[in-house]
Amino acid sequence: GRAEMGIFTQNTAFSGGTNTGAQFFTDIDVTFTMSGETDNGLTFGASVDLDEGGANGTVTNAGVPIPGVASVNGATGNNSDDGGATIFISGGFGTVTMGDTDGALDWALTEAGNVGNPGSLADDETTHAGYLGAYLDGANDGQILRWDYTSGAFGVAISLEDDNGSKAVNTGIGYAIGFKYALDLSGTTVNFGIGHQRAADAAGVTPDAKATGVSVSATFANGLSAGVTYTDMSNLPVDKHYSIGLGYTTGAFSVHANYGKFDGVAAGAEAKGFGLAAAYDLGGGAVVHFGYGSGKSSTAAPTAKSMSLGLGLSF
Amino acid sequence: GRAEMGIFTQNTAFSGGTNTGAQFFTDIDVTFTMSGETDNGLTFGASVDLDEGGANGTVTNAGVPIPGVASVNGATGNNSDDGGATIFISGGFGTVTMGDTDGALDWALTEAGNVGNPGSLADDETTHAGYLGAYLDGANDGQILRWDYTSGAFGVAISLEDDNGSKAVNTGIGYAIGFKYALDLSGTTVNFGIGHQRAADAAGVTPDAKATGVSVSATFANGLSAGVTYTDMSNLPVDKHYSIGLGYTTGAFSVHANYGKFDGVAAGAEAKGFGLAAAYDLGGGAVVHFGYGSGKSSTAAPTAKSMSLGLGLSF
Amino acid sequence: GRAEMGIFTQNTAFSGGTNTGAQFFTDIDVTFTMSGETDNGLTFGASVDLDEGGANGTVTNAGVPIPGVASVNGATGNNSDDGGATIFISGGFGTVTMGDTDGALDWALTEAGNVGNPGSLADDETTHAGYLGAYLDGANDGQILRWDYTSGAFGVAISLEDDNGSKAVNTGIGYAIGFKYALDLSGTTVNFGIGHQRAADAAGVTPDAKATGVSVSATFANGLSAGVTYTDMSNLPVDKHYSIGLGYTTGAFSVHANYGKFDGVAAGAEAKGFGLAAAYDLGGGAVVHFGYGSGKSSTAAPTAKSMSLGLGLSF
Repeated sequence: GRAEMGIFTQNTAFSGGTNTGAQFFTDIDVTFTMSGETDNGLTFGASVDLDEGGANGTVTNAGVPIPGVASVNGATGNNSDDGGATIFISGGFGTVTMGDTDGALDWALTEAGNVGNPGSLADDETTHAGYLGAYLDGANDGQILRWDYTSGAFGVAISLEDDNGSKAVNTGIGYAIGFKYALDLSGTTVNFGIGHQRAADAAGVTPDAKATGVSVSATFANGLSAGVTYTDMSNLPVDKHYSIGLGYTTGAFSVHANYGKFDGVAAGAEAKGFGLAAAYDLGGGAVVHFGYGSGKSSTAAPTAKSMSLGLGLSF
Repeated sequence: GRAEMGIFTQNTAFSGGTNTGAQFFTDIDVTFTMSGETDNGLTFGASVDLDEGGANGTVTNAGVPIPGVASVNGATGNNSDDGGATIFISGGFGTVTMGDTDGALDWALTEAGNVGNPGSLADDETTHAGYLGAYLDGANDGQILRWDYTSGAFGVAISLEDDNGSKAVNTGIGYAIGFKYALDLSGTTVNFGIGHQRAADAAGVTPDAKATGVSVSATFANGLSAGVTYTDMSNLPVDKHYSIGLGYTTGAFSVHANYGKFDGVAAGAEAKGFGLAAAYDLGGGAVVHFGYGSGKSSTAAPTAKSMSLGLGLSF
Repeated sequence: GRAEMGIFTQNTAFSGGTNTGAQFFTDIDVTFTMSGETDNGLTFGASVDLDEGGANGTVTNAGVPIPGVASVNGATGNNSDDGGATIFISGGFGTVTMGDTDGALDWALTEAGNVGNPGSLADDETTHAGYLGAYLDGANDGQILRWDYTSGAFGVAISLEDDNGSKAVNTGIGYAIGFKYALDLSGTTVNFGIGHQRAADAAGVTPDAKATGVSVSATFANGLSAGVTYTDMSNLPVDKHYSIGLGYTTGAFSVHANYGKFDGVAAGAEAKGFGLAAAYDLGGGAVVHFGYGSGKSSTAAPTAKSMSLGLGLSF
């Protein structure tokens, strides 16, 4: 499980609301992890969080149920949606995972925010306008089926995201393919990732959104880590994304920074931003976290900022 | 706990929707079972699933709470509704169970879908139009109080389903009574069940719906099992229900079929359908499941079909 | 965990509804408690219940999602709201708690319903019109930060309840301060509590609601316990509250009664009521509970009554 307590704040450009002063932050979660093994030695498992469970609810107005209206909770209330749960089975053929898992492009690439990032309470460093984290995953509902296989330094994955059984014309299942390679350079491992993805589509949109990406990252013996990504997209309002991530760890202290930029097809459509995270480990699962994010969704847009500070407790 | 992953599909007649192509299926659950014993040796316990918990929620529109509107989750958010939880206390007097439990008629009878059925991901084989599984349980909210007592081959139960404190005229508590008998015929046990039920009623409906049913089922040494049910109903659109269920298990492989038919009081009002389920046990709790259901809600209605295929994982 | 089963009823003046006959009562909960310790010996922990978890949901009408409308569940779905979860860190400096916890005034005082009260299924004895239990806590969203420190017989606490980052004029963070003292009188401990609170305010209300309260309570060797409270409030429709609570325990049997009265600033605005609770302990965590509450929200209002009876099971 995990609990977080602290404060967070954001400006109006970030939240769109009026409640932009510093306020208390609490979050808590309990993760249920289950595993087993078949008679033939296949291993299988599943994971769901407390915040992904929950009964489908009745919706009431002044205490009286509204006819026909219901609240549907993802992981346990809707079999057509993963709702955050993941399920896998693993054997000599590799691993097949279904649910809230990375598509093959996301699986292959090391995004800038995953380079030496100790995290933050409100994920400020990975929610700014210049950040690209999930590529085209979630274009429909994010319920993904992925096969991945690793042999030595080499890994490969193929994934599908379905169209929820849509019969509309021009809809289709999204797919992705990705490759990883870990190159050993006299003790330092350099990780390469490359992949291609077509977005899932339940809405009859044509032509389909596509992305091709590459990443290179490494962690050095002195505690420094660094990585870059480049993603080329088509049939989307933006057509290129660049990012760089840096991390440094010394003793109990960790710090991370990333910068990302979307290049638009039209002048002024660029989105860009940067994120910072710092942490001090108190041991035993308690960590003091600071996070900051700043970004603009176009050259004309106001700068959106968010910040969080507090304790992250892992159990 | 249990997790399921696979694919499912249904036709328009089944789902009423347009998303009737094959799509991914994921479901996950974690069951919390608690038990204890009093100083006098009474045992007690309770059970609730992760998908039956969940906080009552605020309902928002574009992120802003809608005044007076709330999402109410059954098991833990509404004490007038069982929401899926069951609670019992047991002793020399038998067992008293409250919550999401079978009424006495359902308790006594072995329905066709419970005859050697290995189950399926989407319960296709027990959701077709000709299937009767819960008799008149749930006519109000399904919050049931049942006493049952078993002595040797003989069992008896009485149950109540309340009217949620309704003061409307002609409302009333539903009740049921049921009996079980297990007859030993040279090593093969034949199970007999019989019962009668009056439906709960919170809406001032008169006359009350009633049902009287009987079931006979047996499991044979060669892996075959078979059962039939007959239910006579009154004050409902249909007045009779017949069903037959068959099952066969050999090694890791199990297969089940059932057929059911409602006879209406008006010509053409018959509903009927059949279900199939097959499973292959991989051991360790992993089972490959296939389910199929097909039914018509009247002689004029289109045939509604559904199918599911995938892995069921028990932990 | 805990499960409750029984019956409850209330009159129209209590519930405002028409379903005021006796009806079944079921409630169930599972509590997840987590704890840890830092390298420097600080202890930390968190607690959340199954009924406080749950995924944020989609809201559907006849099965179709309503655009923009969502169900937001507190503890795990909204970081600006505690939703029932509590998180703490503790060391030589005392204990800092955040979330669904008592403000310092509530922490310091022993309210009438906490004097030898064995509890009930529907909390009838602490929900009558004359009952004051949380003082000004929850004036905004109840997400509270409290520091408390205890040294021997003396305890002190300071708490804050934020305004959710509101920028409206005249809004502000609520605060409270409280003191406890335990006086040993030849073997009987008399507990004194005193505190002051200003309510949190996210709505631009002025002047702010305030309360100052004091409590005295004691438990005697013969099984009797008794307590009184007095609270002086300002900038609220009522300006004074008095209460008295009594409890008695002998063997497996416990009984409790309390009486409370709000004095209004206008004639006839008094609210008052009393509560009764009785319990018989079956051992092993099973307790038979009875609860009753009766109150009037003004001298002219009808008397609101509620009652519950059943089994409480602790696991």
